[in-house]
Amino acid sequence: MKIVEIREISVPLKSSLRNSVFDFSEMTTSVVAVISDVMRSGKPLIGYAFNSTGRYACGEQMRSRLIPRILSAEPDSLLDSQASNIDPAKVLARMMLREKPGGHTERSVPIGTIEVAVWDLVAKIADKPLYAVLAERFNHGHIPTTIPCYVGGGWYAPGKGVAELQAEMRSRKDEGYTVMKVKVGGAPLTEDLKRLDAAIEVMGSANQIAVDANAAWNRESALQYAKALAPYGLRWLEEPTDPLDYALMAELTGFYEAPIATAENLFSTQDIRNLLQFGGLRSDRDIIQIDVPQSYGITQFSRTLEMMQALDWQRKSVYPHGGNLMTLAIVAGFGLGGCEAYPDVFGAFAGFADDSVVENGMINLSDRPGIGFEGQEKLFGLMQSITA
Amino acid sequence: MKIVEIREISVPLKSSLRNSVFDFSEMTTSVVAVISDVMRSGKPLIGYAFNSTGRYACGEQMRSRLIPRILSAEPDSLLDSQASNIDPAKVLARMMLREKPGGHTERSVPIGTIEVAVWDLVAKIADKPLYAVLAERFNHGHIPTTIPCYVGGGWYAPGKGVAELQAEMRSRKDEGYTVMKVKVGGAPLTEDLKRLDAAIEVMGSANQIAVDANAAWNRESALQYAKALAPYGLRWLEEPTDPLDYALMAELTGFYEAPIATAENLFSTQDIRNLLQFGGLRSDRDIIQIDVPQSYGITQFSRTLEMMQALDWQRKSVYPHGGNLMTLAIVAGFGLGGCEAYPDVFGAFAGFADDSVVENGMINLSDRPGIGFEGQEKLFGLMQSITA
Repeated sequence: MKIVEIREISVPLKSSLRNSVFDFSEMTTSVVAVISDVMRSGKPLIGYAFNSTGRYACGEQMRSRLIPRILSAEPDSLLDSQASNIDPAKVLARMMLREKPGGHTERSVPIGTIEVAVWDLVAKIADKPLYAVLAERFNHGHIPTTIPCYVGGGWYAPGKGVAELQAEMRSRKDEGYTVMKVKVGGAPLTEDLKRLDAAIEVMGSANQIAVDANAAWNRESALQYAKALAPYGLRWLEEPTDPLDYALMAELTGFYEAPIATAENLFSTQDIRNLLQFGGLRSDRDIIQIDVPQSYGITQFSRTLEMMQALDWQRKSVYPHGGNLMTLAIVAGFGLGGCEAYPDVFGAFAGFADDSVVENGMINLSDRPGIGFEGQEKLFGLMQSITA
Repeated sequence: MKIVEIREISVPLKSSLRNSVFDFSEMTTSVVAVISDVMRSGKPLIGYAFNSTGRYACGEQMRSRLIPRILSAEPDSLLDSQASNIDPAKVLARMMLREKPGGHTERSVPIGTIEVAVWDLVAKIADKPLYAVLAERFNHGHIPTTIPCYVGGGWYAPGKGVAELQAEMRSRKDEGYTVMKVKVGGAPLTEDLKRLDAAIEVMGSANQIAVDANAAWNRESALQYAKALAPYGLRWLEEPTDPLDYALMAELTGFYEAPIATAENLFSTQDIRNLLQFGGLRSDRDIIQIDVPQSYGITQFSRTLEMMQALDWQRKSVYPHGGNLMTLAIVAGFGLGGCEAYPDVFGAFAGFADDSVVENGMINLSDRPGIGFEGQEKLFGLMQSITA
């Protein structure tokens, strides 16, 4: 049993979205196929993944050093102790050969993407959904039937006013979602507050609305917004600071009582540890939003969870970044707080299985082996084109 | 006046060196040429740089998004207010278009390398050495005549024992160096202490020896080594912790009295700020070792220095990582503490002008325009091959 080839293509997202900091017009993502020699129904089993949303494609790192390291390893050295499947931890260790400490993001995205594709393959070899494999290994076999799922929406767009925002939210509510995120910080505060009031009016309560500043604010703006938003009691306030500005985060948690969410732009276990040690976040309410495929993948995520647990943080505090099937499998398998969704944005790269159902804010799971991209026609067509 | 083309090639370092954490056998670097339409002696002026040492080549980021952003800008929008030269700050801002907050290293290395090459071009357009241009803009025009320069050496190598280490140090001493760094953490503590004693014997005093752990240690080893090393009163102890582990650094500075050095593996102003705010470092003795071309370049470095000054840190505390002409120009231009040298390692990418002289631990400056790569025959031949 071995990995025989790993292929990558860079695909443009072709999105006209904008948050408070940047637009996605140039954004690309790397789609990866990890091809094995394990045959099923006459075809080799293949693991797939992509590098989530918001970081550019990273094929050169894969091709110039990460893939050659994996393919040059003695195949048996990448198998588990029973030689019954590939061991993602060993593949991760192999990719980390000759890597200097620190400087994570240059490699954490390509490594994490390949590692998640390896997990897709591992679950397909085991002929089980990935969430089931993860639940067995990391959560005492406990598998939920449905998963809390909220909409990461409320984007800024040319010509999009309060009426259009409300229309967007109504259509999400009609689709079965009960919690929705709205972008803030890309308009003057008074206008953002009008957008927020309009959003609450549609969804019903402030507890059903999160707001996301995408790290747009300097200290002055962050303090001004946090003071204005505090009385609302929102579901959460996301990225009110630069992702690495732990001192400012601690200043905000000093007076902002409602939950704060962050960490989609931290990519290593040590960065998350710094956030928890120095950022003043509160384990009884605040939300950690690691993007797993961008942060060295699932094995490293399990180590981050161990570190968090040692600091008295619970798994329910984690809502991973990235509204896609990879995240859904991870949330279900590890028993995390919930999953993000991006209906109708980021093209083929957003969304879940075509037959998935959202009801009362909960999304169901499919029983397809692996991550289940095979149930997402448009995306899977793109993935298959790599190996055609 | 405009930038007409930017080219990049990836070059292997072909080094057999090893520190306590990794070897350089796969290491590559990106060499960049920024070609202008400014003619001098019948040829276009070209700025050059490379992405320092220890991080892999990064041409795909350059080609897929950074270079197209620069070349698609209105040329006049990248000039200074008198339109008399290119403005590196505007080139930097242009490269940062559509970049998400955080996740620095994936772009800080390619952006910094291009930005330093732009500074080489700017100084050539001004027909002055880069250090003179930097001194005018950032250090009241003060230009030193010679620069403190120490050897980053004492590497582990197959078959290299105490006798070979002493031979290496004697030859550096004969070349005119007075301070030398020795790698530690790649051998058992007792063996490393023997290497250290032997090194001190050659150089004359513990104040002439720094040791470098390259972030190899976990907490237990770091505490053990720091306790063993504390009585020596070494010049400095470098990277005793993971580069991002500020809590452990604060623990060490609680009892280790002699200077500690770190930061070659931090790549953003905010990471350096976190180090200074949470790492317990002492501005009266500790050493900050930013690698400028790997950290968004010279403009951003000037902002990091401003931030450091606001926290009561002096420029003399900065010894940038990277023993090359880029670092030498930056140390001389900003009035920093000193420069690193790597005699005979990293092939063409280490070292200074072929006619440079080291005397009593001080290196001289050339008066060549720009960074002065033209005086480093082997490296400049490689750089010229890009535009041939």
